[in-house]
Amino acid sequence: MKAFGVDPGYGRLGVAIVERIHEKERLLYSSCIETDPRDPTPSRLRYIGEEIERIIKAWSPDILATERLYFSKNQKTAMGVSEARGVILYLAGKLSVPILEFTPLEVKLTVTGYGKADKGQVARMVRTLLALPQVPRSDDECDAIALALTAIAERKRLYPQKTGEGIEK
Amino acid sequence: MKAFGVDPGYGRLGVAIVERIHEKERLLYSSCIETDPRDPTPSRLRYIGEEIERIIKAWSPDILATERLYFSKNQKTAMGVSEARGVILYLAGKLSVPILEFTPLEVKLTVTGYGKADKGQVARMVRTLLALPQVPRSDDECDAIALALTAIAERKRLYPQKTGEGIEK
Repeated sequence: MKAFGVDPGYGRLGVAIVERIHEKERLLYSSCIETDPRDPTPSRLRYIGEEIERIIKAWSPDILATERLYFSKNQKTAMGVSEARGVILYLAGKLSVPILEFTPLEVKLTVTGYGKADKGQVARMVRTLLALPQVPRSDDECDAIALALTAIAERKRLYPQKTGEGIEK
Repeated sequence: MKAFGVDPGYGRLGVAIVERIHEKERLLYSSCIETDPRDPTPSRLRYIGEEIERIIKAWSPDILATERLYFSKNQKTAMGVSEARGVILYLAGKLSVPILEFTPLEVKLTVTGYGKADKGQVARMVRTLLALPQVPRSDDECDAIALALTAIAERKRLYPQKTGEGIEK
């Protein structure tokens, strides 16, 4: 099973592909999509969409995991992130990739066992779980990896009999 | 010149195509895209995207006009509308349709000359300007038509020498 984690954002989006095969998780790809604040909104959304589409086509993930936004103190930021989320959800729907949405609390709880874990704790746990040589380069990338890991854990919980073969869908 | 007005929304989106030809505005098409609240978000966004793409391809508008959201008391609604806006702006960018964004105040001011006009006043003015047999069926459709009219007025203001020929781009 391959999970595509997307930490939604406008200026910076974390993206990661994590595979579970032979009962182990492995990081196949991670990156940070950045858009230029000087570019007009439609160009930035277009670039985000192109990158999401490229990654889905390159890796054929079985699921896309992204963050659910419930509330933000900064409404302007929340609206921008929601616009990017709209593009991500639209493309996943169009390319027939099922979606799972998680709150930051659910992600922290799944990855570290503690819902109030800080960014450093999440990063260290991500590194340990995937046996990475170092912690992810950026918070956005780390969040995307943690989202992918959460989706895999959720799938394992929902379909325990099918795990470990690397072919479960 | 043909303007595509889109009143963004999640459950209901107003859409309208208004053409300016021989110094007169004419309503070519208007409708309300509705999504089923029981459907999952990605399906609803996908349907919205398919309809927007279909209308752009059918009518080849020179410009897309939509509402800019600055603030909403209901943050959940604002996020939903922003997700739909993200899909609309992404598709306009992808299909190379330039975008103009207006606040409700700008639309009311352009269409009725009064920034605090109520929905009834806007509807009656839309009917008069386009010589419609009756006022638009729904507020969403009316707002979409008003957005398209505002885009045409804005273009006239910006490029006054080119108006009236029906070929201005």
